[in-house]
Amino acid sequence: MLIGKVVGSVVATRKDAKLGGAKLLVVQVFDQQNKPKDQYVVAIDAVEAGVGDMVLYATGSSARQTDRTEGKPCDAVIMAVVDSWDLGGKNVYEKWA
Amino acid sequence: MLIGKVVGSVVATRKDAKLGGAKLLVVQVFDQQNKPKDQYVVAIDAVEAGVGDMVLYATGSSARQTDRTEGKPCDAVIMAVVDSWDLGGKNVYEKWA
Amino acid sequence: MLIGKVVGSVVATRKDAKLGGAKLLVVQVFDQQNKPKDQYVVAIDAVEAGVGDMVLYATGSSARQTDRTEGKPCDAVIMAVVDSWDLGGKNVYEKWA
Amino acid sequence: MLIGKVVGSVVATRKDAKLGGAKLLVVQVFDQQNKPKDQYVVAIDAVEAGVGDMVLYATGSSARQTDRTEGKPCDAVIMAVVDSWDLGGKNVYEKWA
Amino acid sequence: MLIGKVVGSVVATRKDAKLGGAKLLVVQVFDQQNKPKDQYVVAIDAVEAGVGDMVLYATGSSARQTDRTEGKPCDAVIMAVVDSWDLGGKNVYEKWA
Repeated sequence: MLIGKVVGSVVATRKDAKLGGAKLLVVQVFDQQNKPKDQYVVAIDAVEAGVGDMVLYATGSSARQTDRTEGKPCDAVIMAVVDSWDLGGKNVYEKWA
Repeated sequence: MLIGKVVGSVVATRKDAKLGGAKLLVVQVFDQQNKPKDQYVVAIDAVEAGVGDMVLYATGSSARQTDRTEGKPCDAVIMAVVDSWDLGGKNVYEKWA
Repeated sequence: MLIGKVVGSVVATRKDAKLGGAKLLVVQVFDQQNKPKDQYVVAIDAVEAGVGDMVLYATGSSARQTDRTEGKPCDAVIMAVVDSWDLGGKNVYEKWA
Repeated sequence: MLIGKVVGSVVATRKDAKLGGAKLLVVQVFDQQNKPKDQYVVAIDAVEAGVGDMVLYATGSSARQTDRTEGKPCDAVIMAVVDSWDLGGKNVYEKWA
Repeated sequence: MLIGKVVGSVVATRKDAKLGGAKLLVVQVFDQQNKPKDQYVVAIDAVEAGVGDMVLYATGSSARQTDRTEGKPCDAVIMAVVDSWDLGGKNVYEKWA
């Protein structure tokens, strides 16, 4: 998994039938120091994430292991909202700070 | 998934038997700011996309989760035509503008 | 899938038992403008491709969806020989030109 | 697999139900010369690894082949703690040195 | 698959139970011209490869399609020892030269 920030959303009316109702979020990938990387992904949300949330996303077949993505043509899923992380014992990000 | 623009198509008469009839489109990958990236993919179309459409495509085993790609040697599928997306509350792309 | 050109072949006598008889081809990856990229892959041939042919190859589990690769430790397969492709309505490559 | 060093951990209360109890570790990727690369991954720990340990991690569907990750939306797992490795007959890393 | 050279091995006593006995080799990735790339992988050996051998390795779920890796948290397998390869009709590498 990588850490990312939800920065937007995608609207797509014409999509594969299995994707009806899926929430498509734009996730900016971040590095472990909490800096944005030059990389993004559009992921289906499985945990009611919102714009501004730091999240974890999983890719590939692992992205289909949630109730909301099972059997769907989806290769990226937000499977956790990050509360905090630390590196070498120091807090890097704290949601509730 | 990543965002891309359909920019062309590929003709291949000699192909794996399971691929008969599949529409092979050339997709230029775009970043979240709606700028083209130096990256492309040839994807099977599952949603009647056409040249010029902004689309979402899925890769890997997830690309085989549509009726048109199931069980086929296909690692990229167009599974949605994008109507619009926004970043930080601002519209970045609008199909019908 | 990506577009590539068959540029060579690999001989490997000692290989996993399931791979007996598989034709291993060296594929130079090309971009959509028909220029070689600094990237290659060794792929199993499922469509009787030959040196010089422009081809499409699929990777990952999708590479095992042909009769010749099913159940084998193979992560790249040539699943089509390209006749032609176009970009923005202009022909970029034409095999029979 | 790649070699990495466990450098931190992630706390995520709101996550996919299948992930309850999973330990999420931040792994800095290392090259074969034991130098850190500009790359990280958040992986689920399957072998009681701790901060400072050099580990191996597996990605993709292979990350779901442990008792702790089976069927879960997890695309990276720590599946070994590295004791040592050598290159060209010379020891590069030795945990117990 | 990519071409690589076996350059070392990894010792890991504490590992996922399914991996008991697996031989973990460090593989330096090579390009098609037989030059080392700035990339490596740790792969499980399925073909009795040794240090110095040029090999092919497969990644992802395809790495689990050998008797030695089936069902294991392994995302890279050496599935062939390379005897030789050619590019454009010219021999690039010959094991027995």
